[in-house]
Amino acid sequence: RSDAFCETLGIELAVVEPGYAVTELVVTEDLLNFHGTPHGGAVYSVADAAFAAASNSRGDPAVALETNMSYLDAVDVGDRLTATAEETHVGGRTAEYEVEVTAEGDRVATFRGRVYLLDA
Amino acid sequence: RSDAFCETLGIELAVVEPGYAVTELVVTEDLLNFHGTPHGGAVYSVADAAFAAASNSRGDPAVALETNMSYLDAVDVGDRLTATAEETHVGGRTAEYEVEVTAEGDRVATFRGRVYLLDA
Amino acid sequence: RSDAFCETLGIELAVVEPGYAVTELVVTEDLLNFHGTPHGGAVYSVADAAFAAASNSRGDPAVALETNMSYLDAVDVGDRLTATAEETHVGGRTAEYEVEVTAEGDRVATFRGRVYLLDA
Amino acid sequence: RSDAFCETLGIELAVVEPGYAVTELVVTEDLLNFHGTPHGGAVYSVADAAFAAASNSRGDPAVALETNMSYLDAVDVGDRLTATAEETHVGGRTAEYEVEVTAEGDRVATFRGRVYLLDA
Repeated sequence: RSDAFCETLGIELAVVEPGYAVTELVVTEDLLNFHGTPHGGAVYSVADAAFAAASNSRGDPAVALETNMSYLDAVDVGDRLTATAEETHVGGRTAEYEVEVTAEGDRVATFRGRVYLLDA
Repeated sequence: RSDAFCETLGIELAVVEPGYAVTELVVTEDLLNFHGTPHGGAVYSVADAAFAAASNSRGDPAVALETNMSYLDAVDVGDRLTATAEETHVGGRTAEYEVEVTAEGDRVATFRGRVYLLDA
Repeated sequence: RSDAFCETLGIELAVVEPGYAVTELVVTEDLLNFHGTPHGGAVYSVADAAFAAASNSRGDPAVALETNMSYLDAVDVGDRLTATAEETHVGGRTAEYEVEVTAEGDRVATFRGRVYLLDA
Repeated sequence: RSDAFCETLGIELAVVEPGYAVTELVVTEDLLNFHGTPHGGAVYSVADAAFAAASNSRGDPAVALETNMSYLDAVDVGDRLTATAEETHVGGRTAEYEVEVTAEGDRVATFRGRVYLLDA
């Protein structure tokens, strides 16, 4: 299934398995903010795309309820960001995912999200 | 100052005053996810842009430490999203902002963010 | 209805109205951590109690899904903490509340929480 | 070092190593809310105590900036809660910890927290 938003930003879905997904984004100049550093929304979006892929990976539609993001380290133009989403809980009508974002192997952000499962 | 990321997504800075900012984004088909609904990263990004503008509005550079986002209601293609960031606290080396995102007047998301003030 | 946890800590419910609640807690030495300052769990708990009261105020049982807390300023022994919870959204099967915690009139923490409405 | 708040609630520090800590709490009737279920503040507090122990484990004083909590499953009276805090990042003047809370082996809550290192 195509994802126009990911195409707009250059986010690629590298892996998707049940409850698990990996996305990638190379930081280009199109993603910079007024400080000249990558916009927080770009780093969030690669994590959110992994979260969306993992939480919808079992075929039941999932919608995001709550997310949070920790910005840990600076990211530079040219860095390849990798976001890895893992399922940490499924129960009742919700599920939880943790996403680690790395740049060249170092953790630069942590994301956590909770979804509502529409058909559970 | 130009912001390439905001231009890439179509986010406009409508108002910026000390400790306060408003951004806008019209939801186009470029911002849809694989469900055919606006990507969570797009809604986050308009909020994050207001947060960045408000937190840098006093001239001291601010970097995001932590953010969180609550997705409250569906958003449709064609909706104009408005994100309003207000400063809720400044103290020591950090400041906090709350951002309300509305679509045609109804709250669709709430965002909160904390920044580190580099020169405080 | 009695709340044993609030009695254990000394949290009092000052106001409860539909979608709104105020709780209070005087910081005693029983609430200090190993630094000799009030434990983060104590400041959280007064906010969480206001959130619980406000979200259950309409008669339908509500259970907490997600919360977040921002610690903004130091609190001292003897301070009276006041937590004010306001409903910011109700829709579908969830509702959202923002809670401001003040000590002697100054904001010392911000809390946000989302509940699932069991009978919605 | 004694921690009056933990004694008030019955939280015990089981393990503390550099960047790592485990706390425990048996859910008693003193920790119930008006629903007759364990108060969210009690479950948060056992997680927060592990976070505080882990983040102060290296000798430098750490103060909490931001925390978030996901309530995943119900907890019953008599359950022994175990909170395990692990350091996920240290850099600049902040550090991040993830805390998993289990009851009899099942994850019932996830907590994440960020501290400011006073002497870094």
